[in-house]
Amino acid sequence: MEPCEEEDEEGRAAAAGDPWKECAEVAVQLARRAGQIIRKALTEEKQVSTKTSAADLVTETDHFVENLIISVLKEKFPSHRFIAEESTAAGSKCVLTDSPTWIIDPVDGTCNFVHRFPTVAVSIGFAVNKELEFGVIYHCTEERLYTGRRGQGAFCNDKRLQVSKETDISKALILTEIGPKRDPATLKLFLGNIERLLKAQAHGVRVIGSSTLALCHLASGAADAYYQFGLHCWDLAAATVIIREAGGTVIDTSVDFTVKWTQSVTFLITEWEGPFDNIFSKTQRKKKIRTIIMKMLAVNNCSLGRFEI
Amino acid sequence: MEPCEEEDEEGRAAAAGDPWKECAEVAVQLARRAGQIIRKALTEEKQVSTKTSAADLVTETDHFVENLIISVLKEKFPSHRFIAEESTAAGSKCVLTDSPTWIIDPVDGTCNFVHRFPTVAVSIGFAVNKELEFGVIYHCTEERLYTGRRGQGAFCNDKRLQVSKETDISKALILTEIGPKRDPATLKLFLGNIERLLKAQAHGVRVIGSSTLALCHLASGAADAYYQFGLHCWDLAAATVIIREAGGTVIDTSVDFTVKWTQSVTFLITEWEGPFDNIFSKTQRKKKIRTIIMKMLAVNNCSLGRFEI
Repeated sequence: MEPCEEEDEEGRAAAAGDPWKECAEVAVQLARRAGQIIRKALTEEKQVSTKTSAADLVTETDHFVENLIISVLKEKFPSHRFIAEESTAAGSKCVLTDSPTWIIDPVDGTCNFVHRFPTVAVSIGFAVNKELEFGVIYHCTEERLYTGRRGQGAFCNDKRLQVSKETDISKALILTEIGPKRDPATLKLFLGNIERLLKAQAHGVRVIGSSTLALCHLASGAADAYYQFGLHCWDLAAATVIIREAGGTVIDTSVDFTVKWTQSVTFLITEWEGPFDNIFSKTQRKKKIRTIIMKMLAVNNCSLGRFEI
Repeated sequence: MEPCEEEDEEGRAAAAGDPWKECAEVAVQLARRAGQIIRKALTEEKQVSTKTSAADLVTETDHFVENLIISVLKEKFPSHRFIAEESTAAGSKCVLTDSPTWIIDPVDGTCNFVHRFPTVAVSIGFAVNKELEFGVIYHCTEERLYTGRRGQGAFCNDKRLQVSKETDISKALILTEIGPKRDPATLKLFLGNIERLLKAQAHGVRVIGSSTLALCHLASGAADAYYQFGLHCWDLAAATVIIREAGGTVIDTSVDFTVKWTQSVTFLITEWEGPFDNIFSKTQRKKKIRTIIMKMLAVNNCSLGRFEI
């Protein structure tokens, strides 16, 4: 495994002690740069297309930002690999190898973006040997930068993040997302789970339209749990490092690793172990905490193709 | 009807031409001051109590901010009347007369506030002769000030607001709130309506936990419709001026004015006239657009007592 390619003596020296430092710094720069582009584009007219459903939207900005990020990274780190939302939609395979791999969602919250609803983020995760090394999420309109590096903590604009310690579901604020699917089975699952949580007297359920920013709220302790069916790896990669470094836990609750995505509930929770066992049906509840997130990503079969490890 | 009491010659002269100018300016100052207090308190430990349900929360900050706002206003404008969330919860009646009346929600999004979820606002509306004159909503954490004055437009930090012109439900982003009620009938209504909207292929439904800020998103064109059962007048007063001045429409869809709150769906929409007729059942659909918002406020029976006009 090669570290990032460095351009000068100093870079090489730094890389020896902290091989992914430069990569993490470049990710921050790129996230901010992409964020500026998205923020500007938010108020402008957009060309909107659909992907897997009438509610699965994409704009020229998604493509432009993804291409920008990947082209800069390819030039700097030519040996690295990439998994990104729009490239995958266009047919690229989600192949995860031991090589340094960038996992990118150029515009998370595209539906919000289309509507000028100001909850939109850039998400850049980075994995080596199938282990996540760092994640960068930039809240474009609020100019909040969330970062997490393995073993080095998670931060929002330099403020250290710490997940909530709430363990009582009746005192919890819970986040989820609808996603673009509108088939009866998905809607039933989505609404049924919200109903169960509200019947369990959860303080509230929030749906903000950006899974990565919802996960950042989780990391910052502003909510106590997040769950979602069928998250894609680009929704999770950066956020997972941030949540874990903020003391949180990422769980795959699927019974086995061959289930279809609609049966696979991805829990991202803070300190909780038990409460959801009684809330969700047996086939959906968590089996065990997975410390190697890539294992989980591998089973989060997006409708665009599974990981091939 | 007396204008605001002015303290000097200049004030009286100004009042003659624009009788509620000083009131509007004081509202802005107070909203910002309250916002600072709330922003600071957001990250601190809180004493949380419940009101009508286990999910209907109140903190010492709600009381402190409401008392602060009312005490300052009472001193400046001793003849004015007040309707405010926590005073009403404590037993004060929601009496609306022709007198200048301040309608106040000191902390909108209290559940968010309790959880440090950064979507929290101060809302101050002002009515004279049962007509709303201005509204001020301050997004405490993002430091966005939304204002609307009758006949003078709506603004966010001095940027003019304009509602969306989307009329196609399948291209719409729709906002709603859960509220604190958890009885089966309320949950069924809440989830059933979301299901209908998603089946109608709405782009998305968002639940952010603050009705006033959801309404500000509506005014700014970041969403295309908002609906809610059982909003209180302090949730609506300021936002209604802002939405109407941004070109939006506020509708009460109840069949008559004696229905219970769970049967009364309050629609706050932008340019829409028809689409929801097919989405909601006949007994819930809108009857006509009401231009006198106080009529609508009067039927939005909060569980704490009806308006007495």
